[in-house]
Amino acid sequence: MEVLVINCGSSSLKFQLIDSDSEKVLAKGICERIGIKGSLITYQPTGGEKEVSNIDMPTHHEAIDAVIKALTNKETGVIDDMSEVKAVGHRVVHGGEYFSKATLVDDDVIKKIEECNYLAPLHNPANIIGIKACMNLMPDTPNVVVFDTAFHQTMPESAYLYAIPRKYYDENKIRRYGFHGTSHSFVSKRVAEIMNKPYDELKTIVCHLGNGASICAVDGGKSVDTSMGLTPLAGVIMGTRSGDIDPSIIEVIAKQDGLSIDQVINMLNKESGVAGLSEVSSDFRDITQAIEDGNAKAKSAFDAYIRQVVRFVGAYIAVMNGVDAIAFTAGVGENNKFVRAAVMEHLGYMGVKINHEANDSRGEEVMISTEDSKVKVFVVPTNEELAIARETVEIVNK
Amino acid sequence: MEVLVINCGSSSLKFQLIDSDSEKVLAKGICERIGIKGSLITYQPTGGEKEVSNIDMPTHHEAIDAVIKALTNKETGVIDDMSEVKAVGHRVVHGGEYFSKATLVDDDVIKKIEECNYLAPLHNPANIIGIKACMNLMPDTPNVVVFDTAFHQTMPESAYLYAIPRKYYDENKIRRYGFHGTSHSFVSKRVAEIMNKPYDELKTIVCHLGNGASICAVDGGKSVDTSMGLTPLAGVIMGTRSGDIDPSIIEVIAKQDGLSIDQVINMLNKESGVAGLSEVSSDFRDITQAIEDGNAKAKSAFDAYIRQVVRFVGAYIAVMNGVDAIAFTAGVGENNKFVRAAVMEHLGYMGVKINHEANDSRGEEVMISTEDSKVKVFVVPTNEELAIARETVEIVNK
Repeated sequence: MEVLVINCGSSSLKFQLIDSDSEKVLAKGICERIGIKGSLITYQPTGGEKEVSNIDMPTHHEAIDAVIKALTNKETGVIDDMSEVKAVGHRVVHGGEYFSKATLVDDDVIKKIEECNYLAPLHNPANIIGIKACMNLMPDTPNVVVFDTAFHQTMPESAYLYAIPRKYYDENKIRRYGFHGTSHSFVSKRVAEIMNKPYDELKTIVCHLGNGASICAVDGGKSVDTSMGLTPLAGVIMGTRSGDIDPSIIEVIAKQDGLSIDQVINMLNKESGVAGLSEVSSDFRDITQAIEDGNAKAKSAFDAYIRQVVRFVGAYIAVMNGVDAIAFTAGVGENNKFVRAAVMEHLGYMGVKINHEANDSRGEEVMISTEDSKVKVFVVPTNEELAIARETVEIVNK
Repeated sequence: MEVLVINCGSSSLKFQLIDSDSEKVLAKGICERIGIKGSLITYQPTGGEKEVSNIDMPTHHEAIDAVIKALTNKETGVIDDMSEVKAVGHRVVHGGEYFSKATLVDDDVIKKIEECNYLAPLHNPANIIGIKACMNLMPDTPNVVVFDTAFHQTMPESAYLYAIPRKYYDENKIRRYGFHGTSHSFVSKRVAEIMNKPYDELKTIVCHLGNGASICAVDGGKSVDTSMGLTPLAGVIMGTRSGDIDPSIIEVIAKQDGLSIDQVINMLNKESGVAGLSEVSSDFRDITQAIEDGNAKAKSAFDAYIRQVVRFVGAYIAVMNGVDAIAFTAGVGENNKFVRAAVMEHLGYMGVKINHEANDSRGEEVMISTEDSKVKVFVVPTNEELAIARETVEIVNK
C-alpha cells in the first residue's frame, strides 16, 4: 500500500511516499518557505536525481498541490495517479491527554488537536493546516494522525505530575507529556526484535540524541518515564536548548538583563545547550572537531552533555529497577561514537562492556556492547517516517 | 572548648552552646520576630526547663545580647562569663565560589560574603548581620563562617555548568552550587565511620530529606554532584518547593494567570511541592496519615516525591559508576519509614535488601539494609550544629 507521510512545520512541509509492503521509500522531498517569498520544493524519487523547483506557495494548500504534481509528474513521478495513495499519515506534535495512539482524522479529532494548540503553539497549528490541505486536495483518501506524545501516555501519574499546585494539572493539564514518542516506540520495538525477546518483557532505555534530544524508559513495551516535559525544552542538554535548569535562573537572568519571561525562555530554547555552553556550534561534529583542536569550552560543553545523559540513564535504570538494553538513536546517537562511549563508561556498575570496534561506526544498526555485556547496548537508526507509515496502515486496515 | 553556634534568618536567630570536647549541647534556643513587634526568646539549658521571654529585639544586635544574657544568667545560665566561649561558628548559606571550606572571619571575608548576597538575597544579609552583632558584643572572640555551599565546591565543571550561554557563568557565576553541604559532609563521614572504611575510598549517596531536601553524590569524601542548584529551589520535590520542572512552565503559568516572574517563582517556592500537589500539607506526617485515610491526592504526591528521589539516587549511582552506601537524614529521612522503604524497593537491581524491622524506627542511627545487602543503607541523624562546632574548633585551633 502506498502511504504518503507528511510532517508540516509553520513554513515547511516534509514528505515521503512509502510502499508499506516493501517498506521502501519511493520518493521524498521538502517544501520550504511556504508563505514566504522565494518558496521552493525539493523532490527526489528513490534512485533518481534531486530536483529543486521554485513554485509560488502562499499556503500549505499550494505546497500539498506541488507535492501531488511532483509525485504524479509524467517524467520523474513515481505514481500515475494520486488514487494509488491509499492513506496519508501526518506527524502531529501534541495530542495532550486525548490521544494515546494514532487515530483516523475526523472533525472531532481536528477539534481535539486544536484544543492542544496552547501546549504546542508553534507546531500544532501547522500540523492542522497540513491535514486540512490534504482533506481538500485528496478528499477520498483517509488521513491518520500520529502523535509525538502518544507513546508516553502510558506513564504513571508519579512520572508526569509536577509538584506545583494541583489545579494546574486538574484545570490546565500542565504535566509532563514527553515527545519523540514515535522514535522511542520504533527503536525500543526494534531492540526487542534484535534481541529476539518478547517486547513486553524487556526493560529498555532509548537515548534519542539529535538536535532535540530525549531519553525514555520503556518497561514491557510501555513508556514509563521520559526526559522532555510539558514542552520539548526540558530534560537533557540539546543543540541549542538548555534542558532542565534551576527554575530560579529564569528570574535571576530576567532581572539582571531586564528581559521578559518570553525572552528568557526564547534564549533557553535557541541560544543555550551545547551551542551556548561551547560558543562553538550546536552540531556535535563541530564540537568533536573543536575538542580535537584543543578548545576547552567545547570540551566542557561535551562533558556537561554527557553528565546530563548519564544522570537520566541512571535515573531510568532506578525507575525500572534494572535495565536489559540501552539504545542510541537520532543524529548524535547514531553517528557520534565519542558520546556513546563516554556514556557507556559510566555504566560499568551495570556490567556494561563496550565493544570499541563495533562502536566505531556511523548510522548503522549495530550492537556496541560485547557479547558478554550484562546489559546490551545498541545503535538503532530511527525512522520516524516509516513508523508513521506503519501506524497509518494499521489504522486504515482496521 | 565552648563554642556558640549561630544560625541567623532574616527575623530569627537559632543558637546552641556546644562543649566541643564532649560534643554535648549545654544550652540552646531561638530568638524570633526580630525587628517585628512581639519579639521573643526561647531558651533551654540541657536538662532544664524551656523558658520563653518577651524581649524587645529591634535588630539582631539585641538578639545576640539576649542570648548572652540567657547563657550567663545566674540561675538558669550554663556559663559564668562569655569569656568561656572560645569561638562562635556561624552558618552562612552562600559562599559562592570564594569559599570551599570554613573560614575565620575578617573584613575581607565579610566583603566576599556580601558579594554573594545576590545569590542568596534572603539569607546572606541576615547571616552577615549576625556575624557583625557578635563582633560588636564579643570583640575578643573569633568568629568562624561555615558555608552550606562549601562542601560542593569539589564538584567537577560537568556537574555545575548549566547549558545556558557561557557568559552567565563567566560574568555572573550562574552555576550549580548546591546546599546542605554541612549535613552531606557530616552524614557521609559518619557512614564511613559506621562501615569502618576509609572515607576517601567510599561512594556514598546522602538523601537529606527535610522540609528542604537535597541529594548528594559523595565520591571518595568529595561532593561530585548534588540536586539543588543555583538556589535551593532545584532538585527533588520538597515540602513546599517544586524542585526541577520544565522551565517553560514558568512562562505558561505567568501568561495564563497574568503573574510576574517573581510571583511564579514565589509560588514554586512556597505553594508547590508535596503541599501543592497533595493539597493536604507540607508535613510528611500529615501526608502519611492522609494516605492511611484514603486520600488519593496525598498518595499521588507521595508517589511523585518517591519517583523524584529514586531518579536522583539512580542518577548519582551512574555518575559515580556504582555506590557503596546510601544514607537517609533530616526530618523525613530520619523519621519516615515509608519513604525509605519506597526508595529502597527501586534498588533491587543494585542488590539492596531492606531490613524492614530495622527500618521501623524513627530518628535513630541504624542500618536499614540487611547484612548481606550489596549496598548498605543507613539512617544517620544529621547534626548541622555539631558539624559547625567541629569545623569552627578546627579553624580556631589551626
